[in-house]
Amino acid sequence: MLDIAQLLGRHARRIEALLEREVPRGGLPFIAEGVWYQFASGGKRLRPALCLLTCEALGGDPERALPFALATEILHNFLLIHDDIEDGDTMRRDQETLWKRLGVPNAINVGDFLIAKAYQLILGAPLPTEVNLKLARIFSNALERTVEGQALDINLRGSPEVTLETYHRVVQLKTAYYLALTWVGGAVAAGVRDEALEPLWELGRCLGPAFQIRDDIIDMTEGKGRGGEVGCDLREGKPSICFAYVLDRAAGTEAERSRLVEIVRRPREETTAADVAWAIGFYRSAGAMDFAQETARSLIDRACGVIETLPLDPEGKETFRAISRYIIDRSS
Amino acid sequence: MLDIAQLLGRHARRIEALLEREVPRGGLPFIAEGVWYQFASGGKRLRPALCLLTCEALGGDPERALPFALATEILHNFLLIHDDIEDGDTMRRDQETLWKRLGVPNAINVGDFLIAKAYQLILGAPLPTEVNLKLARIFSNALERTVEGQALDINLRGSPEVTLETYHRVVQLKTAYYLALTWVGGAVAAGVRDEALEPLWELGRCLGPAFQIRDDIIDMTEGKGRGGEVGCDLREGKPSICFAYVLDRAAGTEAERSRLVEIVRRPREETTAADVAWAIGFYRSAGAMDFAQETARSLIDRACGVIETLPLDPEGKETFRAISRYIIDRSS
Repeated sequence: MLDIAQLLGRHARRIEALLEREVPRGGLPFIAEGVWYQFASGGKRLRPALCLLTCEALGGDPERALPFALATEILHNFLLIHDDIEDGDTMRRDQETLWKRLGVPNAINVGDFLIAKAYQLILGAPLPTEVNLKLARIFSNALERTVEGQALDINLRGSPEVTLETYHRVVQLKTAYYLALTWVGGAVAAGVRDEALEPLWELGRCLGPAFQIRDDIIDMTEGKGRGGEVGCDLREGKPSICFAYVLDRAAGTEAERSRLVEIVRRPREETTAADVAWAIGFYRSAGAMDFAQETARSLIDRACGVIETLPLDPEGKETFRAISRYIIDRSS
Repeated sequence: MLDIAQLLGRHARRIEALLEREVPRGGLPFIAEGVWYQFASGGKRLRPALCLLTCEALGGDPERALPFALATEILHNFLLIHDDIEDGDTMRRDQETLWKRLGVPNAINVGDFLIAKAYQLILGAPLPTEVNLKLARIFSNALERTVEGQALDINLRGSPEVTLETYHRVVQLKTAYYLALTWVGGAVAAGVRDEALEPLWELGRCLGPAFQIRDDIIDMTEGKGRGGEVGCDLREGKPSICFAYVLDRAAGTEAERSRLVEIVRRPREETTAADVAWAIGFYRSAGAMDFAQETARSLIDRACGVIETLPLDPEGKETFRAISRYIIDRSS
């Protein structure tokens, strides 16, 4: 089986070098420090590696996709920085979030710097003019869709009106475009025609939500945070697939659903461990957990079907299957 | 004399129509509402009008510059939204700031939406590919410089280390690029060659700071806020040219300078009217006000010299002189 982690690691180093050149450490006052603090919090550089790997698998020179690849990693961090402020999250992985470290004003501003930098990279890449323009357009579109998803997400937290349709819409907008952007960008840099890009977007519409649903499940089983604390999303009132399922299908009794909504809406610091345990138990007995597992599985099956249709040789298809497994299986 | 206000007003209406088409009122949930709330707070649409006017004066069809013109207005509002959060400002003109109205999470997100939208407009304009790419590049560069200026601004508030050099650097970064962007964009859309753009950027480096210095002076004389309250910037600790002058030239006694720094650094709500009156009196007696007036005047003179070198007929030059007067004279 393909050692995808090793492949990804090889590409990650090229990304690091380009970032060093674009935002020299110790460079721009009050900006470089924030950028490097943020980038130090996640070293896998999954997204740019996916971009370069795709460019290569489709017969392109990954060197030419390098600026766009870094732009996807920058976009990812831009979104994390602003999301962490919006969610009031104080920790990301093992360190304080940027706003907690440098204050909200600097964190907003470092994010804004990053988005300008991402565009500079894309627009200045050593590619034909029309390719640069195309890459900038798909990047803007992915950014816009993701922000639209975030708008729904932050305003529908704990809403008793949430349906499965709403859940899927939010998750599509928030995850599909900016994940698929990585490999679509790699494909565009490799010279793939517009008509051939659609299955690559479709792959994002399967794998983004599949990853998110798996993330929802992990939060309620193993726990996402350090020390295996479960129910973090529940405490924050984030709309999980289980919450949407229970409301949409009117699972359990009305009293149970009211209690659930009340727990999800309650401020994070007032949510007790007993609340979380009760909600998770309810999700299990109401069939919401099984539904979540089943939905994730069917999205992954759909992804495998899409991969079969990609214009790739068997080795290329195996690369994409390995990418899919990697995305779905990695712990958050 | 040219009635610039009337000319600007004519262009403003075209901008309004395009914005309606791009972000339909009542459209995107939790986004369109914020966008229109923000755009309602300033109806002059100065920046896009400057873009269209320049395109026309340089022989271009302003219709072709329309998407870029709207993008400059969107950039302006993006910056205002994020700046208001960063500064904790609760009022802008006669209404609550967006974050005060919809909360910080929505305000950050509406800003992020706007920047994606600005790029979509620029990248999708009905212009030759290389012109679109050029416009997107100058836009990104202006955004990056402005954000760099904001980084210095928010981190040097009330710093006793501020010099006139620092002040000029911050003001150049924060005002010159994104003001000049309007007319440089109009010129690029009109087909002006790269080499001929430099004086247009230079005009921004004169007029942006001149406007800012005039704004500093108004804050300490007539007052910028409603009801003519003076010293708003002083209360917020914003680095004015007078503050920089006093420290840089070591004006007054050491005790006076210490007292000034202390007042400027004090939290806004703890700054009294007596503090403000004393600081303004000190600026006057130390020669800082005269210095500010003199600096603004010399920047305006420089701007007039630059206008003489622009590749324009006498009528075009008169348009630019009128634009300059308008920018410098308009109340904030």
